[in-house]
Amino acid sequence: MTRRRFHAGLAWLPPGRLGVDVQIDVTNQVLTTVTVGVPAPSDAVRLPGVVLPGFANSHSHAFHRALRGRTHLGGGSFWSWREQMYALAARLDPDSYLELATATYAEMALAGVTCVGEFHYVHHQPDGAPYDEPNAMGDALREAARRAGIRITLLDTCYLTAGIGEPLRREQRRFSDGDAPAWATRALDREADATTRLGVALHSVRAVPLAAYALIGGARERIGFDAPLHVHVSEQPAENEACLAAYGRTPVELLDDHELLGRWTTAVHATHLTRSDVGLLGDAGASACFCPTTERDLADGIGPARALADAGARLTLGSDQHAVVDLLEEARALEMHERLVTGARGRFAPAALVAALTEDGHASLGWPEAGRIEAGGIADLVAVRLDSVRTAGVDPAQVVLAATAADVDTVVVGGEVVVHGGRHALGDVGQLLDRAITNLWSRPAGSSPPVVP
Amino acid sequence: MTRRRFHAGLAWLPPGRLGVDVQIDVTNQVLTTVTVGVPAPSDAVRLPGVVLPGFANSHSHAFHRALRGRTHLGGGSFWSWREQMYALAARLDPDSYLELATATYAEMALAGVTCVGEFHYVHHQPDGAPYDEPNAMGDALREAARRAGIRITLLDTCYLTAGIGEPLRREQRRFSDGDAPAWATRALDREADATTRLGVALHSVRAVPLAAYALIGGARERIGFDAPLHVHVSEQPAENEACLAAYGRTPVELLDDHELLGRWTTAVHATHLTRSDVGLLGDAGASACFCPTTERDLADGIGPARALADAGARLTLGSDQHAVVDLLEEARALEMHERLVTGARGRFAPAALVAALTEDGHASLGWPEAGRIEAGGIADLVAVRLDSVRTAGVDPAQVVLAATAADVDTVVVGGEVVVHGGRHALGDVGQLLDRAITNLWSRPAGSSPPVVP
Repeated sequence: MTRRRFHAGLAWLPPGRLGVDVQIDVTNQVLTTVTVGVPAPSDAVRLPGVVLPGFANSHSHAFHRALRGRTHLGGGSFWSWREQMYALAARLDPDSYLELATATYAEMALAGVTCVGEFHYVHHQPDGAPYDEPNAMGDALREAARRAGIRITLLDTCYLTAGIGEPLRREQRRFSDGDAPAWATRALDREADATTRLGVALHSVRAVPLAAYALIGGARERIGFDAPLHVHVSEQPAENEACLAAYGRTPVELLDDHELLGRWTTAVHATHLTRSDVGLLGDAGASACFCPTTERDLADGIGPARALADAGARLTLGSDQHAVVDLLEEARALEMHERLVTGARGRFAPAALVAALTEDGHASLGWPEAGRIEAGGIADLVAVRLDSVRTAGVDPAQVVLAATAADVDTVVVGGEVVVHGGRHALGDVGQLLDRAITNLWSRPAGSSPPVVP
Repeated sequence: MTRRRFHAGLAWLPPGRLGVDVQIDVTNQVLTTVTVGVPAPSDAVRLPGVVLPGFANSHSHAFHRALRGRTHLGGGSFWSWREQMYALAARLDPDSYLELATATYAEMALAGVTCVGEFHYVHHQPDGAPYDEPNAMGDALREAARRAGIRITLLDTCYLTAGIGEPLRREQRRFSDGDAPAWATRALDREADATTRLGVALHSVRAVPLAAYALIGGARERIGFDAPLHVHVSEQPAENEACLAAYGRTPVELLDDHELLGRWTTAVHATHLTRSDVGLLGDAGASACFCPTTERDLADGIGPARALADAGARLTLGSDQHAVVDLLEEARALEMHERLVTGARGRFAPAALVAALTEDGHASLGWPEAGRIEAGGIADLVAVRLDSVRTAGVDPAQVVLAATAADVDTVVVGGEVVVHGGRHALGDVGQLLDRAITNLWSRPAGSSPPVVP
């Protein structure tokens, strides 16, 4: 039995208020008592600034980190960016992915992320043949999270077609198990553990034929009654157009038709929705995962976040392609994009942004007991400095509108201190990233992502 | 005569290419030679990462820094935010403004800013009576920039009415000199010096009657043939509506009618423009100063940046209200907001973003010899690390799409090292900010900005 004691000058307590002088006791991974108004005892780890629950990064493709700062020449669109991403995906193997994902998840830990939802679809060898261990890539991601000290929900993703009714392209073969039963057999051949939970993902209406939907839903239920199902939804107008042309239904309507909307569903992006789509997601109590820094980088557009929340959906946040790994920036951008579209401020209260970042994100990843600083919860804590040039002078209750990842001082995951004084237990994470990314791009498959003319 | 020698592994040289192993010699404030392909000599200051020209922060209201993280409760709009801003403005005096602006400009220096354009309108005592020294507030700003080690263009702002034809409100009295001749007399009672240049500003079509336009133009010419004139233009739709109702002209058309559009003009924000406005600004070769983090925070909207550039206008960047002081983020946001609006990537090449941040910004502030690393230029340099978690693995030529203010390692202003290893020569800038902001809000005028219901 491991006991730890922490003390926070200020801590963000449910349902969204700041407690002063908060003593936090942990046994094993669990918060046992949270007591307000206690001077710091000598045996406690002092947490500076304001202490928030751990952040959930609800949508990640870890390998995209190697594209950061390499896709901005030559213009293009989401679709030309995707060609560069495929060129990168072609270079991965279980060892290089372990190295890159470890560094990427460590970067996330430095940004306050205590749990990541990995939307994982690079399953097989480049020609589509399974590795000797068919889950070698997913296992590498689990191991990467373990090394980086964070929890993971591995969302094993079914990916079968290039577009609706279109055979896979060469670069996509490694994403596919051939058919849905083979996907389910492989995906269900793994168990959860203390820091890993499992879920499923339907890549998108482009990549999965309707005939597979029921089987994906069934696989989810076999993992667990509340196991998460994530799906990319309406990120680009072209997806909606193709879906309407093929089926006469929007992507959200298709999910509803096939009973894939529930409280366990997360619609990722949810950018180009109809009013009816918003109502369906809201009625289901589903989550919508916004990835604002990706959605602006990839020129996706701004989704109806406020309307979704008003309709009853939960909002969560992800750094997705990791052009930016700063969940505080994602939270702020959710509000800022709403302001740009509506001309009004305060579309989301700071507490609503923190909820997306913490408890709603964790719930959407199948960790409903994480994301709140209260007895019985998982002991995930993030101390954000209030004395940096970015945060000096701010109201601590509004810190989410001013702080950045660079202000994260201490990160505790399941009671263990993973980041202290802004340093990760693994050491120089910039160096880890540099090594992993340099290794990947210097492999024989090519030297750099193709520049789109 | 002061000589300095610097060495950069990578430096951003005109017209937008990276030089390798660059030796940079400085005499007094000026770059004397810039030589590519030289191994680092032992007597040189080594600059890490990639070295860019100094950043121009082309639009600043220094005192707004004290509002950061304090205006996000209770919703509202630009107009309700303005009430909170007025409550803050009412608390300033020359001493407290010196303290706050010194800390704010030091924060800017840490972000790579080597020159700030201060759009200055808090001229007088709260009741409108001049201080014993009528330029006490402007002098405090000049002194603040000197202490923070950066250059300043003081844009002395004419502000006479609350709205078109509307008398000043009580909170606005200290902004006004009573009439335009009195404004000009005061504004012209100062001289430039080695690190200060002067310009004028017309606050907005709201705040200045047409009868004063010619006099403002004349004051500009008295300062110098190329002296800058800045003006807030079409930040909010309501401004345009009032202008059209009163004059039957848009704000840009009014400026054109009164011969206030030239290469020396900067239209700040330029958010809600007609196609004709874009053409007028372009034909004049004027600058448009975008402040993207402010324009999203204040729910202004997204202006037509690409269209302005295509029409012939120059683009510059400002942190304006300083909800964020990160000029790299402003540059990135210029591109990201275009992507959100158009669905396309690469609307501005990285080199175009750097130009806005550096030479075009400096030119719009009346420092045409700054912002380029070339012989004869002012010796302003910013070293941006390439080994942080944010920048590891990026193409150095695309660093502006990945780096943040936290990656600024060394800042050289006029040959002097102001920031080294991410530390400002003044010491702990967070502490300076905290002290200045705490002092200001704890003064008797009230305890916090009013919360808008």
